[in-house]
Amino acid sequence: MLRHERRSANAYHVMMQGVFDLSAELVPVSQAIASGLARVEEVFDSQLASDLPPVSKLVKHVENYRGKMLRPTLVLACGLACSNASGGTAEDFERRIVQSHVVCGAVVEMVHMATLVHDDVLDEADMRRRGKTVNRLHGNEAAVILGDYLIAGAYHLCSTLPTNDASLAVGKASMVTCAGELLQLHHRDDYSLDEATYFEIVARKTADLIATSAELGAICSGADAATREALRKFGRGVGIAFQVQDDILDLLGSEKTVGKSVGKDAEKGKMTLPIIHHLAAADARTRARMLLLLEQASGDMSHEHGAELVQAIHATDSLAFSRVAATKYIAEAKRELAVLPESAAKKLLLAMADAVVTRAF
Amino acid sequence: MLRHERRSANAYHVMMQGVFDLSAELVPVSQAIASGLARVEEVFDSQLASDLPPVSKLVKHVENYRGKMLRPTLVLACGLACSNASGGTAEDFERRIVQSHVVCGAVVEMVHMATLVHDDVLDEADMRRRGKTVNRLHGNEAAVILGDYLIAGAYHLCSTLPTNDASLAVGKASMVTCAGELLQLHHRDDYSLDEATYFEIVARKTADLIATSAELGAICSGADAATREALRKFGRGVGIAFQVQDDILDLLGSEKTVGKSVGKDAEKGKMTLPIIHHLAAADARTRARMLLLLEQASGDMSHEHGAELVQAIHATDSLAFSRVAATKYIAEAKRELAVLPESAAKKLLLAMADAVVTRAF
Repeated sequence: MLRHERRSANAYHVMMQGVFDLSAELVPVSQAIASGLARVEEVFDSQLASDLPPVSKLVKHVENYRGKMLRPTLVLACGLACSNASGGTAEDFERRIVQSHVVCGAVVEMVHMATLVHDDVLDEADMRRRGKTVNRLHGNEAAVILGDYLIAGAYHLCSTLPTNDASLAVGKASMVTCAGELLQLHHRDDYSLDEATYFEIVARKTADLIATSAELGAICSGADAATREALRKFGRGVGIAFQVQDDILDLLGSEKTVGKSVGKDAEKGKMTLPIIHHLAAADARTRARMLLLLEQASGDMSHEHGAELVQAIHATDSLAFSRVAATKYIAEAKRELAVLPESAAKKLLLAMADAVVTRAF
Repeated sequence: MLRHERRSANAYHVMMQGVFDLSAELVPVSQAIASGLARVEEVFDSQLASDLPPVSKLVKHVENYRGKMLRPTLVLACGLACSNASGGTAEDFERRIVQSHVVCGAVVEMVHMATLVHDDVLDEADMRRRGKTVNRLHGNEAAVILGDYLIAGAYHLCSTLPTNDASLAVGKASMVTCAGELLQLHHRDDYSLDEATYFEIVARKTADLIATSAELGAICSGADAATREALRKFGRGVGIAFQVQDDILDLLGSEKTVGKSVGKDAEKGKMTLPIIHHLAAADARTRARMLLLLEQASGDMSHEHGAELVQAIHATDSLAFSRVAATKYIAEAKRELAVLPESAAKKLLLAMADAVVTRAF
């Protein structure tokens, strides 16, 4: 089992510097967010702590899944951007991160983790973040129940907040996420999936919880309805672009990241934007060849099939098409932030949005 | 697929008459509860309605799982018992069932349904309530996500209530239920499981949501803390006895109910109270024979093994022991109701408690 080490605020700040292009102006606000993320981690761990060793062992394992913390970062950064204070020292920003921001950060991360744990069961995945998955180590039963435990922990934690706005938003987002997953499942191995349905799936399955994370930041800062809605739309655009970038990275994998193979999504019967575009843009003969390849690669993508897939995608410029689409969503998302006054936190949100489509991991 | 038909209030009342021994005095209150259960069903269905056909198809299927509605019935009956009105016509009682009782009834039934759907995945069950399971018809993926959708629906619905008392109670109960399930999983095929650990598992896995259902009735009627706690303890005792009675029925199955085979729990490696008692009470030779039988029957209980299991259990009077244990929990549960003023609803709760250990299904 992986040993869990809690990250320090400093470790979070180093991580953020690796992800965003942080100008000197953005250092104090990002330090405050890093320190907020360390608080999120504490709340996360203490909420899930159990007197039963079989439970705490599994929870410890899940804590190792912690990745970029995109969703809690959005809660905190959007919270600061709505706090009506343009600048200050790291300590000034830290004081503006109130406990409800931290609680909501832990809640959205818990909901997200539950999704990961259940996804690994559905995908029969063996590895996550260089460690073995819960289903691999402890069986599908433990993984299904652990995911349920995480969801229950998230809702219980959210109910500790003084008003029910956050609980309503999180409950709704979870329903929409599940509905999106069921729609995706319904279209598994559906090689005729069109772009509109693809975006409908992505908007629900991936983007809704991200949109809700941004909205929660606004809710906890007491923002008005128009600001809440604008931040929600911002998060929605960021979330859709995030998924498209994931689709792109799935086809760049072996070149950029050691050990990662390409076409994992196609292997699982999940249609991605580059493949949908390729099938629509290719001539009849190429399309027929690709459909045959997708069928053959279903369940197990060989190195040869992966290479052929990537080559075909390049021939129709489908990665470039997808990059343009993602960039368009990011541009629209950034425009939503016009409702916010100028501030360091707003600049950080703009930098975060840009980083979504430039990231290589 | 089974066709879903919504039950009328009258159908619920007929069902209740089949379960409890309803004296003439209890007819108006049970009619009101039956009409409340019809409202619960309406809220349940409308909360889970979706614009996506793949989602609504699965939800319709789950609506066919609806059984005894024990948990919503407890919410409504405890709610009435705390409403400080001793009697009246069915219409009088109906008016005292407020919308928050109905909402909480739908919430606990949704959480319970989620458990059933996920349990069927874990048990690889093919049938439930004479229909095929979701996992059998639509695969494990759909069943896992559908369970998540039900939980999300429950929490979102609970968050619509004006205060967060119910959300906190439901969130906590879900965490405790999952922890109990993980503890049970940890002890699967553990033939040395003792009575104390068995009751710890049951208290969490089965009894906590039932205890919370009773408590929610009190919460929605604005009962004081002492009454809430007493009703919670009542529900806890009823819940533990309910599980013990299930254990007993698992060993009576073939005699009482057409087509049901005995020893399903042992087949799944779940230790039940009669088996735990038998192993503790039997002489060394008999115990050794039983351990061998349990191991051989793991995964597939033959008719011969089932018959031998039942015979052995009878030889040590382990069913009688279990009946005594269940009856003791029911007696303790009933004593908790002393905090309530005399009323028709209280009498109904007492009759419900008795029915838990006399039921044969």
